[in-house]
Amino acid sequence: MRTSIATVCLSGTLEEKMHAAAAAGFDGIEVFEQDLVVSPSSPEEIRELAAQLGLSLDLYQPFRDADAVGPELFAANLRRAEAKFQLMNRLGTDTMLVCSNVGTAEIDDDEVVAGQLRELGELAARYGVRLAYEALAWGRFVDDFEHAQRIVDLADHPSVGTCLDSFHILSRAWDPAPIEGIAAEKIFFVQLADAPLLSMDVLSWSRHHRVFPGEGDFDMVGFMTHLVRAGYDGPVSLEIFNDAFRQADVNRTAVDGLRSLRWLEDQTRRALDGEPVRDTLGLQALPAVEEPAGYDFVEIRTGRLGETTRLLHQLGFALGGHHQSKENVQLWVQGPVRIVVNDDVPDGSPTEIAALGFEVADPDAAIDRATRLAALPVPRSQGPGEQVLRGVFAPDGTEVFFCGRPADGVPAWLGEFGADEESHDAALVTGVDHINMAQPWQHYDEAVLFYTSVLALAAQPSQDVPGPSGLVRSQVMRSASGAVRMPLNVAPAAAEQGSFVGAAYPEHVALYCTDVFAAARRARRRGLDFLPVPQNYYEDLDARFDLDDEFVASLQELNLLYDRDADGEFLHFYTGTLGTVFFEVVERRGGYAGFGAPNAPVRLAAQYRRSQAEHRARTEA
Amino acid sequence: MRTSIATVCLSGTLEEKMHAAAAAGFDGIEVFEQDLVVSPSSPEEIRELAAQLGLSLDLYQPFRDADAVGPELFAANLRRAEAKFQLMNRLGTDTMLVCSNVGTAEIDDDEVVAGQLRELGELAARYGVRLAYEALAWGRFVDDFEHAQRIVDLADHPSVGTCLDSFHILSRAWDPAPIEGIAAEKIFFVQLADAPLLSMDVLSWSRHHRVFPGEGDFDMVGFMTHLVRAGYDGPVSLEIFNDAFRQADVNRTAVDGLRSLRWLEDQTRRALDGEPVRDTLGLQALPAVEEPAGYDFVEIRTGRLGETTRLLHQLGFALGGHHQSKENVQLWVQGPVRIVVNDDVPDGSPTEIAALGFEVADPDAAIDRATRLAALPVPRSQGPGEQVLRGVFAPDGTEVFFCGRPADGVPAWLGEFGADEESHDAALVTGVDHINMAQPWQHYDEAVLFYTSVLALAAQPSQDVPGPSGLVRSQVMRSASGAVRMPLNVAPAAAEQGSFVGAAYPEHVALYCTDVFAAARRARRRGLDFLPVPQNYYEDLDARFDLDDEFVASLQELNLLYDRDADGEFLHFYTGTLGTVFFEVVERRGGYAGFGAPNAPVRLAAQYRRSQAEHRARTEA
Repeated sequence: MRTSIATVCLSGTLEEKMHAAAAAGFDGIEVFEQDLVVSPSSPEEIRELAAQLGLSLDLYQPFRDADAVGPELFAANLRRAEAKFQLMNRLGTDTMLVCSNVGTAEIDDDEVVAGQLRELGELAARYGVRLAYEALAWGRFVDDFEHAQRIVDLADHPSVGTCLDSFHILSRAWDPAPIEGIAAEKIFFVQLADAPLLSMDVLSWSRHHRVFPGEGDFDMVGFMTHLVRAGYDGPVSLEIFNDAFRQADVNRTAVDGLRSLRWLEDQTRRALDGEPVRDTLGLQALPAVEEPAGYDFVEIRTGRLGETTRLLHQLGFALGGHHQSKENVQLWVQGPVRIVVNDDVPDGSPTEIAALGFEVADPDAAIDRATRLAALPVPRSQGPGEQVLRGVFAPDGTEVFFCGRPADGVPAWLGEFGADEESHDAALVTGVDHINMAQPWQHYDEAVLFYTSVLALAAQPSQDVPGPSGLVRSQVMRSASGAVRMPLNVAPAAAEQGSFVGAAYPEHVALYCTDVFAAARRARRRGLDFLPVPQNYYEDLDARFDLDDEFVASLQELNLLYDRDADGEFLHFYTGTLGTVFFEVVERRGGYAGFGAPNAPVRLAAQYRRSQAEHRARTEA
Repeated sequence: MRTSIATVCLSGTLEEKMHAAAAAGFDGIEVFEQDLVVSPSSPEEIRELAAQLGLSLDLYQPFRDADAVGPELFAANLRRAEAKFQLMNRLGTDTMLVCSNVGTAEIDDDEVVAGQLRELGELAARYGVRLAYEALAWGRFVDDFEHAQRIVDLADHPSVGTCLDSFHILSRAWDPAPIEGIAAEKIFFVQLADAPLLSMDVLSWSRHHRVFPGEGDFDMVGFMTHLVRAGYDGPVSLEIFNDAFRQADVNRTAVDGLRSLRWLEDQTRRALDGEPVRDTLGLQALPAVEEPAGYDFVEIRTGRLGETTRLLHQLGFALGGHHQSKENVQLWVQGPVRIVVNDDVPDGSPTEIAALGFEVADPDAAIDRATRLAALPVPRSQGPGEQVLRGVFAPDGTEVFFCGRPADGVPAWLGEFGADEESHDAALVTGVDHINMAQPWQHYDEAVLFYTSVLALAAQPSQDVPGPSGLVRSQVMRSASGAVRMPLNVAPAAAEQGSFVGAAYPEHVALYCTDVFAAARRARRRGLDFLPVPQNYYEDLDARFDLDDEFVASLQELNLLYDRDADGEFLHFYTGTLGTVFFEVVERRGGYAGFGAPNAPVRLAAQYRRSQAEHRARTEA
């Protein structure tokens, strides 16, 4: 599949965009007119740079408000178009996007519009240029791709074809199936954009909220299958107007975009499997990845080993051993939960979640798939005879490792810690319930696509949690079985109120147990610093749920929080935060499938108070 | 007018919110339940703190989904409500907001709903509590204040009244005039929120985009006049759900909120002038302020005096003198344009726009009005016999001075620079056309209200300008006469691409002249560092406007940009940037009233390229 990206998707200068697109692995780009207009590079220099970078210049765009106008304005439009055709000859690009008229359309007559497109096409042909006519979702008279196609058919000129844009079609909920009836040679170009389903005017939605395929709610795979069935064989190009992408690092966005096309290609190839259709796009499938069966390990990196291991012991973990060749790496275990503590960092470095190990059926296939999805491999050394662990960096910098699932449930790498004999009997904690990861806000969509495409997790509906420094967006990524659940949290971008935001927003590991009271009592005996829960919370809990007084008292005694829904109950407590990491211990009763979201504001407020108090203490000291 | 604010408008802890509300000068607050639930302070402690701070606790909110339910759920709701009544007794607050049911409503029968409100009211009365029933704009069966009022009338209980919220009424475009027909003693509470007109679902609009009165598009003054005519005499309270306010510094937001009420009070008082209505709210008018007649001076602060004065000279300014008592303060003049250059800062400090002087009819009234609008006065010293200049800080920290307009057009303070004799004859620059100020994104709405309320400028429709580091929001504030025009620019909050964002986003002074070619030629002779304009721009200009080749060549020779609309033409050039300041020189032909917005991306791209090149140079050095 030939991949392309419109320069408007990317931040920076035209030259920076081109370098980034080439580095990510795109085959070509669409040149967005304004990017060229503001550039000091001549069209010839851009052509030369594209050649050096191995990029084709697939489209020049946009040409607006050409059609459905009176004769005088149309004459001016022809003149305007001719200047652009000359420019395109200098650039060496042969396809121009012509948008259905939004601003100046006066004549709602398909014959007139077709006649004008034909005349424009005749002029274009003299310069070897093709016109791809596109129905904008908010076009004055033409806002529907089938209507645009009827006009293209009426124009009946070899230089006049259609451009299909998934956003303009799916945002209006037009049925994309009729794409299959369009003659392939008349589809001059295809642009792709996904988007979250939002109830707002379509122009604002389009201009600010498009995302890469796989990051939104549209059926992009279905859209692609129609194109293949139509016999389309041209470039598949991303055209995303997104406020965050416009600010984000250009190289990261380009990688994110290419990943979205590789993922979409793979999904489309699979969707078409068994169907007797000629694959005109040359779709490549990626190695299949099964969803992870669970967490193999969590690695915490810390320059404060003592307080970290004390916390683990308070939660019931036992020291499982020290790594045979890696100094400063120790293993803490409880039941099937394994936490690697790595203090191979300068003393005092803040405690953080450095790596997650996921149990997958075929680690080699998983790493192959991930790297073909443009994920950056983690460099890692092994001693002789040691297990080879392979992983990639997630968008937030966390290392994601793919670990095989051994038949006996005990990973081979445990031997490297001399931890081959495990007893699960005394463990109150019996698993990892979920892991909350903080995401930089510019890379939220990228993170969703990363976990979707690399680990086959699915995005659940997101929600906003109010905190003292702003709203925190919470987006759960989940494997179909539920064995892996990762709420992604996006903290306020640039809060002024309090220091508890952005990079300081803490991440946490939630541990599953079947008796949270026992786990909390053990933790208390061992001196755990619980995150305090206010009295007002328990009074409100009682008002909301009509609970037994003794039960509420037992919750309060141990700083336990409580939630209930139609399916069951959720009891949990939080520890204080070390660096950017804290722990949660949860017990689920019945079929409760949530994460105690109503209690998140209590946690945020308590963490904020501590953060403010620490800040004051530092300031006064 | 008794002023109040819901704690949900403010960031931080409940205690921080209360301190901020009191410091800003509010009379009371609404306690948002969740703020109390997450607080370690008991209701009694909050009551005590409120008393210490002189704040009344005007409302406890919200109580949701009480009505229109079956008997079993209603019984549970009564129990839930009673717990809250008890809590309110401890808090010492006597009014509870009851929202029309959104989530659990089953019975669409006004008699049933009224009966349930009556029963709830009967229970409330036992605790001395009043219920203010509010129609949410997205209520299941009750979404209209007149419907809510009919139910309140049906309930016919002294403890059951109504709460009127401007957002819920105006967002649905309900006619607010029938408010005047509601019995005053039945209006238990009034909440105010303004909002920009957005085409999105009303729930998202309400939860994320409310703003303080005067910062949006609703007719808040009209709304208030209906309340006065109804005879309402209770608190007027702000209830704003806004993503930016949730992150912003709590004290600033509180001041912004109080300013909005003082402004609204003044506007309402004026709107009612001459009307024979009993002013039950006790509305206070502020000193009137006429819109400014123009700019008296611009003050630039710089630690790089040489490059600053060189630039001014290149633009045609002449040294007008040095201040008689303030060392390091000099005056540069050209025609009626006066630029004060203050280098009383450490050597090398970046160049910035420090202050703006506005010509107003009555400076004393203006400063009185501004300080009563909670603007912070600028401390400033005068020597004996020197003019007293008084000003306040704008939200971005710029000093705003109010200067009288002398009869002969020459400000008295010029004498302090020994600059009593001015010749305007040689000046090519004949005025300040506009001044672009960068705004921190969290304080954009605050800035709009500041300039609206303090200087009687009006917000024009805003637009987004694409730049290499993200979209820049541009919002013109303008006096009715057009003599003062200030585009406010909000740069991307946290861009990763390039350093040209946030605090580094430059501001500029646009100078008006009648012959921009002559001004540009003089500047070139004097060696001005023009912001370069690419060749591609001129080719595109030609394609768009069909200009005379010679004219385009003359533009290009001098790095001039061009725009045209139905009313006239706009020619302009930009200088390079010193610190965060650059200059623009503009010529307007015909009735062109814009700011060359189509050329802004050219400027942003050129400034970005320079910023990137400087960054590279620094990094390599």
